[in-house]
Amino acid sequence: MDPVQLDDALASLEGPWSPLTVATVNDYDVRVVKTAGEFTRHSHPDTDELFLVLDGELTIQLRDGDVTLTAGQLYVVPRGVEHCPVAEGEVSAVLIEPIGVVNTGDAGGALTAGYDDSLLD
Amino acid sequence: MDPVQLDDALASLEGPWSPLTVATVNDYDVRVVKTAGEFTRHSHPDTDELFLVLDGELTIQLRDGDVTLTAGQLYVVPRGVEHCPVAEGEVSAVLIEPIGVVNTGDAGGALTAGYDDSLLD
Repeated sequence: MDPVQLDDALASLEGPWSPLTVATVNDYDVRVVKTAGEFTRHSHPDTDELFLVLDGELTIQLRDGDVTLTAGQLYVVPRGVEHCPVAEGEVSAVLIEPIGVVNTGDAGGALTAGYDDSLLD
Repeated sequence: MDPVQLDDALASLEGPWSPLTVATVNDYDVRVVKTAGEFTRHSHPDTDELFLVLDGELTIQLRDGDVTLTAGQLYVVPRGVEHCPVAEGEVSAVLIEPIGVVNTGDAGGALTAGYDDSLLD
């Protein structure tokens, strides 16, 4: 019955672009992630993906333009839409998507992270 | 392609305990809500419910004890678990749960809010 402290979870991350699941809601993950620099352009053919920025400034590059998020702002990338998250400085964010969704989606590559739910009971 | 500004959405709320859906992730709602005082003890037999506090202090009374959340903390009430949110002062929070879940769950009563997704396209 302990709450999840997002700052503590973020502080435990070893590096950027490696999401950590901090809670689940039915079959959805609530993840924290830090980002720095440019990620991999990719899409998730089967799911939407929510980005909620807690700290810093995150730009999500889309085919039709950029969406820039600062603290307290969120954006949902629709399923199948190519996107490339880019952060000039360090960004802390929450992601919400179905359990086990791979961070690099259909692109794969070196930034593909393993699924980490080690904080859960 | 505009981001959701949580503060703006919260400022648009007419009163406490009336969630406003600000985005959807597949078949899930992302809602903002303000709370003040004591809500109705209830449960959601078919779904978990996530509370993320943005401002203020929210206590979720459970049969087995209380969970108190401050800004940056979240807690997921498991499906079927009776809970009663209580806030001494005003609280701003994000809720995540399947689209259309009724705020008072199986309890009903005067605090039951209509489903409000008027912000969505």
